[in-house]
Amino acid sequence: MSKQLPVADAAPYCPPLLREPLSEVRSVELARVLKAIADPVRLRLLSLIASHAGGEACVCELTGAFDLTGPTISHHLKVLREAGVIAGERRGTWIYYRVRPEALAELSALLLAPAEPATAEAVGA
Amino acid sequence: MSKQLPVADAAPYCPPLLREPLSEVRSVELARVLKAIADPVRLRLLSLIASHAGGEACVCELTGAFDLTGPTISHHLKVLREAGVIAGERRGTWIYYRVRPEALAELSALLLAPAEPATAEAVGA
Repeated sequence: MSKQLPVADAAPYCPPLLREPLSEVRSVELARVLKAIADPVRLRLLSLIASHAGGEACVCELTGAFDLTGPTISHHLKVLREAGVIAGERRGTWIYYRVRPEALAELSALLLAPAEPATAEAVGA
Repeated sequence: MSKQLPVADAAPYCPPLLREPLSEVRSVELARVLKAIADPVRLRLLSLIASHAGGEACVCELTGAFDLTGPTISHHLKVLREAGVIAGERRGTWIYYRVRPEALAELSALLLAPAEPATAEAVGA
């Protein structure tokens, strides 16, 4: 229904950013998702939706937290949806949004620092 | 020496974004750091620096990977340094950059989905 970047689904294996050089194609995809969440209103929307009762919220339950109009909030929700970090489901009059934790988990894994090299041999042992 | 956002040092405890509503102040700080890395060139720079021999690189060792001039690469490095995700150290003619994994680890933790509620009572048990 909505345009979604092929982030969470199309990249089952994603080596952490810090472990090996990122390809140009992958860097463009990732930058688009990061740009979608790199906004104070959208970060708060994500966090409000995720911590809302039942893990979902409609725009009517979100506007109260902001000095912004409904259409502006809807615009921000659309950006998040198109980036694949939230999903919307229409029920009656409203669209209910929930966070797609797998999309955020992928970003999270990407930013993890590499572990100490496990295969390093003890020096002088 | 460089301006750095108070991200990694000033926030020893950072509850994941998805667990509780994010404050307005915190959302602004986080959006600034995310914006700094939400760029294909800067993502590749981060990953090139981190995976370079010794975990550090100077601008002279990074320009070859891009169709960009040295000053443009330097500009992107400055954005990353000001966001606190890399640190630079001058040695002789060059500044050597390394990733600050603690800053990225904080972002990473923030995006982690909350675990299943451990305190949830069994229904009907």
